[in-house]
Amino acid sequence: MTLSETYHQIRQRSETICSKLQTEDYVVQPIVDVSPPKWHLGHTTWFFETFILKPYVTGYQEYNPEYNYVFNSYYETVGARVIRTDRGNLSRPTVLEVYRYRAYVDEAMMNFLCHETSPEIKELLILGFNHEEQHQELLYYDIKYILGHNPLFPAYDHAYHSPAHEKSPTANFIPIPEGVYEIGFSGQGFCFDNELNRHKVYLNAYEISPNLVTNGEYLKFIEDGGYHDFRYWHSEGLDWVKNNHIECPLYWHRVDEQWQHYTYRGLEPVKLDEPLCHISYYEAYAYASWKGLRLPTEFEWEAASNKFNWGLRWEWTESAYLPYPGFAKAPGAIGEYNGKFMVNQKVLRGGSEVTPPGHSRATYRNFFHPNLRWLFSGIRLAR
Amino acid sequence: MTLSETYHQIRQRSETICSKLQTEDYVVQPIVDVSPPKWHLGHTTWFFETFILKPYVTGYQEYNPEYNYVFNSYYETVGARVIRTDRGNLSRPTVLEVYRYRAYVDEAMMNFLCHETSPEIKELLILGFNHEEQHQELLYYDIKYILGHNPLFPAYDHAYHSPAHEKSPTANFIPIPEGVYEIGFSGQGFCFDNELNRHKVYLNAYEISPNLVTNGEYLKFIEDGGYHDFRYWHSEGLDWVKNNHIECPLYWHRVDEQWQHYTYRGLEPVKLDEPLCHISYYEAYAYASWKGLRLPTEFEWEAASNKFNWGLRWEWTESAYLPYPGFAKAPGAIGEYNGKFMVNQKVLRGGSEVTPPGHSRATYRNFFHPNLRWLFSGIRLAR
Amino acid sequence: MTLSETYHQIRQRSETICSKLQTEDYVVQPIVDVSPPKWHLGHTTWFFETFILKPYVTGYQEYNPEYNYVFNSYYETVGARVIRTDRGNLSRPTVLEVYRYRAYVDEAMMNFLCHETSPEIKELLILGFNHEEQHQELLYYDIKYILGHNPLFPAYDHAYHSPAHEKSPTANFIPIPEGVYEIGFSGQGFCFDNELNRHKVYLNAYEISPNLVTNGEYLKFIEDGGYHDFRYWHSEGLDWVKNNHIECPLYWHRVDEQWQHYTYRGLEPVKLDEPLCHISYYEAYAYASWKGLRLPTEFEWEAASNKFNWGLRWEWTESAYLPYPGFAKAPGAIGEYNGKFMVNQKVLRGGSEVTPPGHSRATYRNFFHPNLRWLFSGIRLAR
Amino acid sequence: MTLSETYHQIRQRSETICSKLQTEDYVVQPIVDVSPPKWHLGHTTWFFETFILKPYVTGYQEYNPEYNYVFNSYYETVGARVIRTDRGNLSRPTVLEVYRYRAYVDEAMMNFLCHETSPEIKELLILGFNHEEQHQELLYYDIKYILGHNPLFPAYDHAYHSPAHEKSPTANFIPIPEGVYEIGFSGQGFCFDNELNRHKVYLNAYEISPNLVTNGEYLKFIEDGGYHDFRYWHSEGLDWVKNNHIECPLYWHRVDEQWQHYTYRGLEPVKLDEPLCHISYYEAYAYASWKGLRLPTEFEWEAASNKFNWGLRWEWTESAYLPYPGFAKAPGAIGEYNGKFMVNQKVLRGGSEVTPPGHSRATYRNFFHPNLRWLFSGIRLAR
Repeated sequence: MTLSETYHQIRQRSETICSKLQTEDYVVQPIVDVSPPKWHLGHTTWFFETFILKPYVTGYQEYNPEYNYVFNSYYETVGARVIRTDRGNLSRPTVLEVYRYRAYVDEAMMNFLCHETSPEIKELLILGFNHEEQHQELLYYDIKYILGHNPLFPAYDHAYHSPAHEKSPTANFIPIPEGVYEIGFSGQGFCFDNELNRHKVYLNAYEISPNLVTNGEYLKFIEDGGYHDFRYWHSEGLDWVKNNHIECPLYWHRVDEQWQHYTYRGLEPVKLDEPLCHISYYEAYAYASWKGLRLPTEFEWEAASNKFNWGLRWEWTESAYLPYPGFAKAPGAIGEYNGKFMVNQKVLRGGSEVTPPGHSRATYRNFFHPNLRWLFSGIRLAR
Repeated sequence: MTLSETYHQIRQRSETICSKLQTEDYVVQPIVDVSPPKWHLGHTTWFFETFILKPYVTGYQEYNPEYNYVFNSYYETVGARVIRTDRGNLSRPTVLEVYRYRAYVDEAMMNFLCHETSPEIKELLILGFNHEEQHQELLYYDIKYILGHNPLFPAYDHAYHSPAHEKSPTANFIPIPEGVYEIGFSGQGFCFDNELNRHKVYLNAYEISPNLVTNGEYLKFIEDGGYHDFRYWHSEGLDWVKNNHIECPLYWHRVDEQWQHYTYRGLEPVKLDEPLCHISYYEAYAYASWKGLRLPTEFEWEAASNKFNWGLRWEWTESAYLPYPGFAKAPGAIGEYNGKFMVNQKVLRGGSEVTPPGHSRATYRNFFHPNLRWLFSGIRLAR
Repeated sequence: MTLSETYHQIRQRSETICSKLQTEDYVVQPIVDVSPPKWHLGHTTWFFETFILKPYVTGYQEYNPEYNYVFNSYYETVGARVIRTDRGNLSRPTVLEVYRYRAYVDEAMMNFLCHETSPEIKELLILGFNHEEQHQELLYYDIKYILGHNPLFPAYDHAYHSPAHEKSPTANFIPIPEGVYEIGFSGQGFCFDNELNRHKVYLNAYEISPNLVTNGEYLKFIEDGGYHDFRYWHSEGLDWVKNNHIECPLYWHRVDEQWQHYTYRGLEPVKLDEPLCHISYYEAYAYASWKGLRLPTEFEWEAASNKFNWGLRWEWTESAYLPYPGFAKAPGAIGEYNGKFMVNQKVLRGGSEVTPPGHSRATYRNFFHPNLRWLFSGIRLAR
Repeated sequence: MTLSETYHQIRQRSETICSKLQTEDYVVQPIVDVSPPKWHLGHTTWFFETFILKPYVTGYQEYNPEYNYVFNSYYETVGARVIRTDRGNLSRPTVLEVYRYRAYVDEAMMNFLCHETSPEIKELLILGFNHEEQHQELLYYDIKYILGHNPLFPAYDHAYHSPAHEKSPTANFIPIPEGVYEIGFSGQGFCFDNELNRHKVYLNAYEISPNLVTNGEYLKFIEDGGYHDFRYWHSEGLDWVKNNHIECPLYWHRVDEQWQHYTYRGLEPVKLDEPLCHISYYEAYAYASWKGLRLPTEFEWEAASNKFNWGLRWEWTESAYLPYPGFAKAPGAIGEYNGKFMVNQKVLRGGSEVTPPGHSRATYRNFFHPNLRWLFSGIRLAR
């Protein structure tokens, strides 16, 4: 595919995701971690305008200088911005206006992509593609949160179809021998800076489950009083459980003696054999402790990743999100991409049913704070 | 006018106010005191459905039982409700759906109003009319806040026209002699329960200004460092100023060495001879102290109210919002209307340019917490 | 008594109140409203040093200039101060050092009081006496809070003896006829500025109880579910109950199926016929609503005050704390005494068992925020 | 030394540290991380009473059952406890009473230690010794905070003498070759469970500084505007700087154009060649970024630890506090010691001038949240 075809396809996909929304759904921000869908559409557009069109297209006429302020996310290098908690207070620009902004930038980009580009620009473009794909996944999370926390529990798409999840033929844990393993990205394609450099780690012998923990398995933890037994929890995890009155995964509701959960199709009974979803790291850790097992590190996960299927859930690992040896930030605004988040977050590996096709890989390092649950997070056990 | 004509006219007016909004403007709630416009449209409709149609119309089919939860404001008698801070998190019901709800209830109401009604129901209807008019004024406040806090400062209506404000021919304060005055509503028309009972108060001799404080007069207070001089402030007022970095009235901005303020037409230079607007009680008190004067009590205001014009601003009084002698709450949900707010609030008298025609009167007691500014509040001095 | 005798007696009384404390009890500040006893001892001393010795005694050598910062309470006129929440973080100056400071200032004051003083200084002295007496009452409140919230529930004084409370021979409410009454202080003795000016108010006919509400009567309200029935509460009061999980008066504990409360003698069973104590205005209002009655206004209270005994409890009134007609602040720091608190507080009338002898009077206006309970507050009903 | 001699010596040392305090200094808790010194004295005593005397000494008479509630720190296994923020609200038990409690438990312990003990009990005893030594270090931190945040800046000990700090003869970074290194405790003596198990890690080649960063070097960072340049900070670190108005290390004050800092001797000028102290991880990271360098990981630190001196500062590492391979919690309350804190904290290596002699070692893993500064923390750079 040409760059211009890829650009078109990725940009189109963001709009397709939103095509099932009502105008009002584009606007709200029920919690700070969720952004209004129209903000995602504007921000990804701002990214191309700011980092490609304005520096590299002579005579490019900026669409609206005030959008810099509205759609900048966290790039301190490029100036002031609406603070994150205020995104849901902005009724303007309207959804229609944001789509007009997208069309304007897309036209300029398509013109630009008719011409040959330098390797440097190509690299920026591919970063922009991957950036928009990351926001596509966030769009799915945020839409689910917005609709799933509405008292009317409206469906996003009655025909939404979750991918099949095949269990491994055996439940036996996979043994991995002690030794030095190579970790991190190598090869030709794209990767984020946090996956570099490929380096050696020494791993003790360990075993890792071929399967994800299911709803039914987690239900046993709930029924055993797991949420109320301090022995399984980090001290901070227990505070989080108590302060937020946590009793079950996000989106679960006890209705008429039955466990239901909100899905993109609306409220449905929880299926016991489906992989567990929407739990925090604290819960993942507590569940593993209750089982007498543990979570894998991100290195253990990566070293074994060719031995099991993955891609259905982002799997919490025991690893903190830290730089790899030799990690170096790019200069300028692009260098703000990953490094500045490398404290107090946990690494997740895998992928999810709402990860754009081909976006994840075995070396991909996703990361979130340990209390967050609106991502499609699950558990794989190790020992 | 018949009840049915009045109903139609009042209901129509709410929709006319909103007719200049974009769909997105109906949805957001930038601060807890502001409600999304679509919530006002739904809540006033819920009021008629809950207190008229459901109890008095045989066979009435409720539009959607879940709307009880969404559109109840604070009536504990009628069940659970969305907590106030969450109103801006609800993208559903959509604006269109809310208008459908209005149409459905309006049709049922118009049918109902074809028939003779009992005095009791008539009283409820008139309360419903006045309730919707109160929300019309709040709609104006909330729309101004939503658009006036958007970084794009969009106009609500480029043709919006503020009423003329004629200064009194003289600036001389009006002297009112000492004596017993009658305060509170009497007569035939509608009044709220908090205006009853009419009763005697003893007033010392006092003088009251025939004019409202202007922007230009208030600017002198700002330029004299009034916001930074503790001598003029209540202790709580000073804390409020410091914690919120208050330097000027709400909606004022210092742009290029000039004072501008957001109006329904967008940003405009502050006109010095216009009556001051959008200040808190704390500021009103501090301004009066700085002038060596004071605010009138609500009784002083009412006793002199036939001697000056009013209706341009809600004028902060020195009086706390308290029950009149013999005040009694109505039984049931309607009794929750006023009494339960009678603590920690200040009375304002007058009216404003966005008060529905004929809605206010000399005995009308408006009330807000002393820190609030998004209402159309102003200052009249006394001594 | 000479001024010097009065000075000595009042200063001595503060130290006598503290004589039953351990050193550690002087230091802590469990909530913002409570000040460490050593702070009270220092602050009242600072008052005499700052307003008498430094301005009027030639050659007076300030004890320690840094004490200005430590012991100033809220006088913005006299400079920076330790913020209120930090008082309990200060281990120095030590208790011994504070007593040394008192001795130093007392010696200078006694020398000063040997000489004739001007009327102006005499007025300041008497304000200082009354100021220290107010802090003596606060000392009693704060000591009770400090010891009564310690898990060991230590006694302050095993021999502490509450004054007898004689019930009125009749429970009949006292009728007061409609008319104009004079309110406020007049005469020769001392009063605070907030009691001036004496002025006329018009009162409707009313009736007021000769007795305070007892523990036993209030217990019926509790047992009737009064804390959980929104109909009796202000909206803010209900929020306060819910957010703070209030179920009974301050210091009450349900121990082995019995109601106990902390007293200066330690934990004791609640005596049903004693006057209720340590309730907030919100509770007082809710109790009155539950009884189908109301609280008196401060004017009703004062106009009837010669018809019943009082002085056992500070009795919540329905009145907000507002300036009397013609109220004027004194110039300078002394003018900060009362006026700047006249917003969002409620007036209490009466006195309490820990009010210094002769300190209160029928025109005395005590005031606190409506949520506070550590004062000796009670309820007298009216209708 | 016999166990009984060691017990006596360690217990005595805690009291010696406190011997320079005034009674009042034992009581206060200016921030949640600081505990009142008397609480440390009681809590370490409670540890021996709860884990040795009560389970193993027949007929032991508990000193006061309520002390369980007062002096339990975080052991959920052994019941309810005073919440951490309330420790500074407790004036009782008094300091004298706490010393009596110590004497009572010490006598029982000395009697117990006359007899032979099982290996299991010996292990508990040694844990108790190390536990008390950890609290001795915290005592030093907390005393410094309590006195160093008092506006009078009282000295703890005018004769306090900081240990000499010899600079390495060369400033050249020490090169460490790539390879597999063994990390973690092995051998005979005591270690905490978090130092086990000894395991292999693979390290890339790196270089580590032989010296700690000095005050003078850090001052250049301040003067270069380092605190205001987002490029050097984590996103969370920058928020921390802004929200807390951080401009310099803890205890530093700009007085008359000169940098002073609070020491145990009182306020003193900052010495430029002394090792920097009292900085957060966020600041350590930002300083390293500004230098174009980085912090070592805890593995890099340990692998090189025989090549430089250490023990003057706890040195922030880049490593998150996580379990070593094969980490297992002990059963029961003792198992709560370390594991439950293994989230959102950073590892520090080294020691400090207030670490008890012999308490630290090359494998010792100290850990704190990244925002904390009241510990004796410093910076060693790597690349």
